[in-house]
Amino acid sequence: MSTRPAGGSPPASERRARTRARLLDAAHEVFAEVGMDAASVEMICERAGFTRGAFYSNFESKDELFLALITQLADAKLEEVAGRVRGLEPDTLADPSALVRQVVGVSLGERLEPQLVSEIRTQALRDPRLAAAYLAWQEVMRSRVEEIIRHVVDTYGLRLRLPIEEAAQLLLDVSDDTCTRATLEGRPVGEVTALLNERIERLVGVLVDAP
Amino acid sequence: MSTRPAGGSPPASERRARTRARLLDAAHEVFAEVGMDAASVEMICERAGFTRGAFYSNFESKDELFLALITQLADAKLEEVAGRVRGLEPDTLADPSALVRQVVGVSLGERLEPQLVSEIRTQALRDPRLAAAYLAWQEVMRSRVEEIIRHVVDTYGLRLRLPIEEAAQLLLDVSDDTCTRATLEGRPVGEVTALLNERIERLVGVLVDAP
Repeated sequence: MSTRPAGGSPPASERRARTRARLLDAAHEVFAEVGMDAASVEMICERAGFTRGAFYSNFESKDELFLALITQLADAKLEEVAGRVRGLEPDTLADPSALVRQVVGVSLGERLEPQLVSEIRTQALRDPRLAAAYLAWQEVMRSRVEEIIRHVVDTYGLRLRLPIEEAAQLLLDVSDDTCTRATLEGRPVGEVTALLNERIERLVGVLVDAP
Repeated sequence: MSTRPAGGSPPASERRARTRARLLDAAHEVFAEVGMDAASVEMICERAGFTRGAFYSNFESKDELFLALITQLADAKLEEVAGRVRGLEPDTLADPSALVRQVVGVSLGERLEPQLVSEIRTQALRDPRLAAAYLAWQEVMRSRVEEIIRHVVDTYGLRLRLPIEEAAQLLLDVSDDTCTRATLEGRPVGEVTALLNERIERLVGVLVDAP
């Protein structure tokens, strides 16, 4: 999609992207080991092999780093779903349940995510600057889910019984609650995915009028 | 409802109930001032005018106290809704939107609640004992919402398009997300209530088949 001539990417911005990526990986590891509260900027820098200067030229704060991390993790999942949606065959049966199983079947992978989202949300409820960033992230997620819904609805000529923003928000609310609850219950990843599919299938069943 | 003879309530259990109530009030005040992390058992005891001994004969830990507090706050709201539901006139119009406005119109009152729930959930994701208690609380909430739904559905001969447990969980998920998001956005209480009613009206519109 870039309009930049091939081979012309400035080394500085590439280096910056690599630094950010290493800091995000380090934050992910440190979070898994000690949680967000105990994870200090020092610990993350040491793990990544960078100075605090490198950290602060990329992120304003530890909270901002963790928000960038959860954005990255959530993006990867939504991109997986979007990819499956782009691959849908318009001539297959528009059976909502089959569609959901085909599209959602996301490997949730990370057990840490509900924990990370919960910690960031808790911080955001205390800190208006982080609240604004968190809300902006949620808004982006919702737009991406809207795009996915729009593609499916257009492909199969379905009719939604709710405004698309509301349908997208409901799907996000159900996913969030299902993953959090399943994590609290200590369920293995496979079970979480099955539960999520089940709830989303039921929800899609009431949200969609088949043509 | 008690089967105990009038005048026969043992002073010890009454004293215990008063101690618990004062500790809960103190915890609420201290939470509002410094948040759950910074609120220590010492601070709460000092505010309530009790010793640590009195605290630990009522609660196993600070987390358990805060879970009891949020249970009390949520119970009060659900009881308000249940009361309005018991007062419904079976001969009024079974218009789902009008019903929701009549029943839900909860004064959300406390801006602190989303914050408190979020902090307890975050702790529960780190601590399996608290996770079990949190899940048990959520289960009780869902049963109470199911009872409310059952009463409305029976009164008006409505048909739900989802199993009642799933409908109850969806209503809870939407309430939780709406209140959290509105708090992050810094909205005044009146706006939060209006938003919540709007979302629940739309949801009930797709969940219910009128007779």
